[in-house]
Amino acid sequence: MSEHHPLDLPEDHPFGPHTLPYGVFSTADDPTRRRIGVRYGDHVLDLDALAATSGSPHADLLAAPTLNPLLAAGRETWQAVREAVRTAVTDPAHRAATESLLLPLNAVTLHLPFEVADYVDFYASEHHATNVGRIFRPNADALTPNWKHLPIGYHGRAGTVVVSGTPVVRPDGQRKAPADTAPTFGPSRRLDIEAEVGFVVGTPSALGEPVGLAGFRDHVFGVCLVNDWSARDIQAWEYVPLGPFLGKSFATSVSAWITPLDALDHARTAPPARDVPVLPYLDDSDAEPGGIDLRIQVDINGETVARPPFSAMYWTAAQQLTHMTVNGASLRTGDLYASGTVSGPEPDQLGCLLELTQGKGPFLEDGDEVTLTAWAPGPEGSRIGLGEVTGRIRPARTS
Amino acid sequence: MSEHHPLDLPEDHPFGPHTLPYGVFSTADDPTRRRIGVRYGDHVLDLDALAATSGSPHADLLAAPTLNPLLAAGRETWQAVREAVRTAVTDPAHRAATESLLLPLNAVTLHLPFEVADYVDFYASEHHATNVGRIFRPNADALTPNWKHLPIGYHGRAGTVVVSGTPVVRPDGQRKAPADTAPTFGPSRRLDIEAEVGFVVGTPSALGEPVGLAGFRDHVFGVCLVNDWSARDIQAWEYVPLGPFLGKSFATSVSAWITPLDALDHARTAPPARDVPVLPYLDDSDAEPGGIDLRIQVDINGETVARPPFSAMYWTAAQQLTHMTVNGASLRTGDLYASGTVSGPEPDQLGCLLELTQGKGPFLEDGDEVTLTAWAPGPEGSRIGLGEVTGRIRPARTS
Repeated sequence: MSEHHPLDLPEDHPFGPHTLPYGVFSTADDPTRRRIGVRYGDHVLDLDALAATSGSPHADLLAAPTLNPLLAAGRETWQAVREAVRTAVTDPAHRAATESLLLPLNAVTLHLPFEVADYVDFYASEHHATNVGRIFRPNADALTPNWKHLPIGYHGRAGTVVVSGTPVVRPDGQRKAPADTAPTFGPSRRLDIEAEVGFVVGTPSALGEPVGLAGFRDHVFGVCLVNDWSARDIQAWEYVPLGPFLGKSFATSVSAWITPLDALDHARTAPPARDVPVLPYLDDSDAEPGGIDLRIQVDINGETVARPPFSAMYWTAAQQLTHMTVNGASLRTGDLYASGTVSGPEPDQLGCLLELTQGKGPFLEDGDEVTLTAWAPGPEGSRIGLGEVTGRIRPARTS
Repeated sequence: MSEHHPLDLPEDHPFGPHTLPYGVFSTADDPTRRRIGVRYGDHVLDLDALAATSGSPHADLLAAPTLNPLLAAGRETWQAVREAVRTAVTDPAHRAATESLLLPLNAVTLHLPFEVADYVDFYASEHHATNVGRIFRPNADALTPNWKHLPIGYHGRAGTVVVSGTPVVRPDGQRKAPADTAPTFGPSRRLDIEAEVGFVVGTPSALGEPVGLAGFRDHVFGVCLVNDWSARDIQAWEYVPLGPFLGKSFATSVSAWITPLDALDHARTAPPARDVPVLPYLDDSDAEPGGIDLRIQVDINGETVARPPFSAMYWTAAQQLTHMTVNGASLRTGDLYASGTVSGPEPDQLGCLLELTQGKGPFLEDGDEVTLTAWAPGPEGSRIGLGEVTGRIRPARTS
């Protein structure tokens, strides 16, 4: 790639003309002015400036300091904006104008791209749920009786969703080993990752109106990577009977780039066969393929420790959205829901250290840096990259 | 009370000069203009108008359409505004001016008073947890081993917190009785209430900085009543292993009025004796009394079914705030955390139908109206009322 022609990318560049994810950035000369950009190659296209200079009808949305107004505008607008961006980066007639609006990625600061409304975390990998069930509940069936009837999920803490690059302080909390008679307080000794895929809701829904499987594309704007940091010792002691709380709520990292769902059309794939019949509202046998062939890579301190395949997930993102609203719960713009840890059937496809080490550790050390990346096949042999999510562990406050 | 002198209240009126809760209202002649009001007797004092006519230094905060800017302003501002309001309603020199800014309660529409950031629900009544444990887990100890070591809590859905008066549609969902081989889909048959007290966070905290017990008064603005509607059949089937989700997320009702914490000073009381030592970060033996002598009343269709005493709660709101942030999780303005169902030791002190009927029902019928009210002792023999929270059950969509 030539430094002087940033619009010329190799055909297989994961952030080429078929990807075009959205983020929010600022520059050193005006650090408080957050604006929307699109990643192209290793540059950021300033969408506020593009909209202003091109007389875009969506200039107001694109001048916002978060993606939320664009998310709320609905699918037709998403498609129109995406088409305009694609033209800007691919049409030779726009080449000079577009190049003048590009900033090198390493010259900008990336921010949390949207205000998170509610955050829900699912548990949709059969491999993960089985492996974890064996570790957490060794005397019971690995999968709970409900697991194949509904996509199990729970609400997480929206206020501690942070953007990729944010350091993660090792949490303090209560831990109790089975042999101990009482809990002790101190830094988590079993700090873990969970490699997940997140879905960002754009179009809201009304209270009392379920969103069916067919509503997935109208309501979900795009996709990001999620690292659902987990303190296993805190979690194990606290989670019965009401679920994970402080073992998760200290930080959840998301990538700085939100990839439009449309960019993943080529990667749609059938989910695994379901061996237990589902109730009609979850029956996707006649729907478009609900799986996504996203290949995730987990690196710790630069070494690849796993390659979890998102295509192996038992429950799809459309089923999760449907289930989450079937009781009448409404969606808000900025709702984020994550897949749950992505784990495949192979030993090198496991999305957390708990599984990779069969519960024995080692877990994360202070100073460790964890980076998740992913790509999916795109049209014409292209690759669709998801923005990385990375974070480094800082020592606990009490250490 | 004379119609012509709305500032003259009986001494024991629950919304007298020692209460002064905040809400958000609109009027029929300008329905889109939401503004902040204070309840006094059966009237609403228009705080936007009061601030404008009195030249208040806080006029900007009080002109907002939600309480959030006031909540974010911090404790000194809360106290200054409260003192100004008290002067307006009690100082004879202000009488005429204040009366001109009062609107009858039945002439205004009340709205959700603040934008909810994160919503957390605790489980802090030993009586409730014991009773429910016996019903949900008949073959295990009623209290889980962690219960007396930490205030168990979980995140709920902030986007479906609704203001008192909002109808509640009976949720559809998956239900499976123990004798059934597979779940069925349809309206909840075990729709329940949970009478709770909610705490509204004003001052935010930084990520990574725990809030100790002494921070309670600086961070928590006030108190409201909460009805945490619960579909017991949906909940029972879904909640293992990650906690309640759709059994709760269809609606959580809060009162329209937020009572400042300072109004409850006179009602502070020692919590019950703890029979298991707690870790130092939760040890409140040297702190101000953490209990609150709030007397709750649960009415269904006008008939009182229970009088749960909030003073019986094992874990205090200060301990809950401390625990919620001990892992470094940050607070945001508008965070709401609820106590969990308030149940006392007596059969007429139970805060949900599950307990009141020992799991057998009957539960709520379509058309039932549930109303929670509460009061606490105030100074000089006064009563401090909490705004009611009420809601009527509408039939399920599939019924």
